[in-house]
Amino acid sequence: MDWHQIFAGRNDRMKASEIRELLKLLDQPDIISFAGGIPDPDLFPAEAFQEAFTQALTAENQATALQYSVSEGYAPLRDWIVGEMARLDIPCTRDNIMITSGSQQALDYLGKLLLNAGDTALVGWPTYLGALGAFNAYEPRYDRLDPETNRSAADYAEAAGEGQVKFAYMSVDFANPTGRTLDAQMRERVIDLADELDIAVIEDAAYQSLRFEGEALAPVLAREIARKGSIDACRTIYCGSFSKTLAPGLRVGWVCASKEVIGQLVLLKQAADLHSSTINQMAIATVAQNQFDTHVAKIKEAYRARRDSMLAALEKHMPDSVRWTRPEGGMFIWLDLPAQLNSADLLAQSLKSERVAFVPGHAFFADGTGTNTMRLSFSKMDEALIDEGIERLGRLIAAAL
Amino acid sequence: MDWHQIFAGRNDRMKASEIRELLKLLDQPDIISFAGGIPDPDLFPAEAFQEAFTQALTAENQATALQYSVSEGYAPLRDWIVGEMARLDIPCTRDNIMITSGSQQALDYLGKLLLNAGDTALVGWPTYLGALGAFNAYEPRYDRLDPETNRSAADYAEAAGEGQVKFAYMSVDFANPTGRTLDAQMRERVIDLADELDIAVIEDAAYQSLRFEGEALAPVLAREIARKGSIDACRTIYCGSFSKTLAPGLRVGWVCASKEVIGQLVLLKQAADLHSSTINQMAIATVAQNQFDTHVAKIKEAYRARRDSMLAALEKHMPDSVRWTRPEGGMFIWLDLPAQLNSADLLAQSLKSERVAFVPGHAFFADGTGTNTMRLSFSKMDEALIDEGIERLGRLIAAAL
Repeated sequence: MDWHQIFAGRNDRMKASEIRELLKLLDQPDIISFAGGIPDPDLFPAEAFQEAFTQALTAENQATALQYSVSEGYAPLRDWIVGEMARLDIPCTRDNIMITSGSQQALDYLGKLLLNAGDTALVGWPTYLGALGAFNAYEPRYDRLDPETNRSAADYAEAAGEGQVKFAYMSVDFANPTGRTLDAQMRERVIDLADELDIAVIEDAAYQSLRFEGEALAPVLAREIARKGSIDACRTIYCGSFSKTLAPGLRVGWVCASKEVIGQLVLLKQAADLHSSTINQMAIATVAQNQFDTHVAKIKEAYRARRDSMLAALEKHMPDSVRWTRPEGGMFIWLDLPAQLNSADLLAQSLKSERVAFVPGHAFFADGTGTNTMRLSFSKMDEALIDEGIERLGRLIAAAL
Repeated sequence: MDWHQIFAGRNDRMKASEIRELLKLLDQPDIISFAGGIPDPDLFPAEAFQEAFTQALTAENQATALQYSVSEGYAPLRDWIVGEMARLDIPCTRDNIMITSGSQQALDYLGKLLLNAGDTALVGWPTYLGALGAFNAYEPRYDRLDPETNRSAADYAEAAGEGQVKFAYMSVDFANPTGRTLDAQMRERVIDLADELDIAVIEDAAYQSLRFEGEALAPVLAREIARKGSIDACRTIYCGSFSKTLAPGLRVGWVCASKEVIGQLVLLKQAADLHSSTINQMAIATVAQNQFDTHVAKIKEAYRARRDSMLAALEKHMPDSVRWTRPEGGMFIWLDLPAQLNSADLLAQSLKSERVAFVPGHAFFADGTGTNTMRLSFSKMDEALIDEGIERLGRLIAAAL
């Protein structure tokens, strides 16, 4: 039986990532890994979750916790998020919030909501690999979102050919993979561009709570509300997540947007998985209500120390021709190597000699460029090992120059 | 801002269900509801889940339970399912199993895997409403799967027009909405037809474990393996669920199919939501390992008694011209009313007078016929109230004749 005769066309774009396969090989005890980009499990609020799950399963709550629930999400959790959004200058109501199974699911549903095959998604060069994966299922074209240039709306529209430009996607704070933050002027410019093109803006805020230095910048959605008076008049769709702040294993995130967008997303979710786990939404609500701020303060302290160690180690061990970002939060530092170096080749070499893992950067580019870049994560590594790992990496790069 | 200019075309098919809106009105304390079709929360193994979540969050397990995990699913749960499939004469390995967030998600992913816009899905007339909802997102045409007729493969293929017939979808045991079970001969005939058309078969087994009468029939996948020697040579894709046996609120189901299908589904899931909740998969594994059979025996006894009550009440209170199914398991009885009656009108009347809720049948028909049918669920109602509710319903129908 030839399944390729039966699989839909979109599957041609859903390929196994070579990088992921390579990283599987690198998941060995003697490897110093800067590859993962996942939270440190030692920092999970496990005791708080123990209490929260116990509470969800008391005689009073168990019939709710174990039963089907509404596609919109658990009301007390949505209400907590409304309060959180208000702190970000995003006034909204429960009807502006839908719970998703992690913000990855929000990206899938937004692709489903917005993209016809051949439509254009504007994304950064580089951008979050998982966003490209989610959108690929809806067979878009990609164009480069670069608010620092003065490229006109007409030019973007013309480049879209027969399809329509549908949205601009961006991770705005300490982005995966670069660690960079979009400044206030660029945030405003993206709204201008979206208004001119009449498209949506997808604001991926997965790392927003993890700022450990500098002043917080108002989200794109807050800026658009300031211009237009109400979230229901806005084109920005904000995606939040508890994966980096509380725990990813429960798969709980949210979308905050105009009621019209949320209403249609709820219909898509109802048809796609009915609802996110009821008990997990209840547990997340309890832990968030009791200790979101204190817990986030604790993990930020840990990640900040690791970032500092990695920056210091890069300063000490990297050849002069290597450049890197200096993130004010999040989990990632991005390296630009001299143009003649290929980071995928370096990773293959590292597997044989230095035993340091990282993610080659070109997978984050929709056009496959960026072969001389790499992503390092400092989120899950002991500080002593960070220095050792960066020393080895510096040696590897120096030898390749 | 006109979102309808931006939403993708598929959204035209993702409309709010009128029935769902009507049922919201009917969710009031004085209503006797046969509408829901959801498990009785009094039958959830809540104590076992308390223990299972506590165990998942011990010092030893918490770093796994709260962390990201693989898209394929939690290995011990997949291994338990392998054992369960073997009991159904479906020999397979862990690589033939992917965990989904309920079997609804399996239907969404299978639509994504198989359907180009304009392709044809063969479904029953009637069929599971949620399957139509999931598939609609991929813009198929529907044709009637009716293995009892001798309609030829060539005729099905011709009716598909420019698109391809891609799969036959069926709920085989005590189907939602009819309660009917496909007999052995018809199961074999579906395999014949699928072989001739070179299409997939989606076997929705959500209710399979809930047989409380008669001999179990081998699943379609077991029959195809018997013919072809190995699951990896088979075109049948089996979808299972813990929602009707243990608890729906955790959102855990699975797909069992050839490695090639599972491999591609894993890529789709990775891009769509990374993985299903880790902690919920661990909790389900623990409860399934410890007490699946004893717990299922307990709920079957309760549902059987309720089915018996409903059949007895129908016998007693229904006008002679009404026909109904006699399910050997599951949660549903299906009523055929005289052709001149419209069950949606009856529901609207019931809201005013008799205060009995049910689901009008026409929503389960891809062609919108079936206006004289209705679905009754006996899963969540006290036996005394079943008699009272059916008496009122009989009165309502008699008055309309």
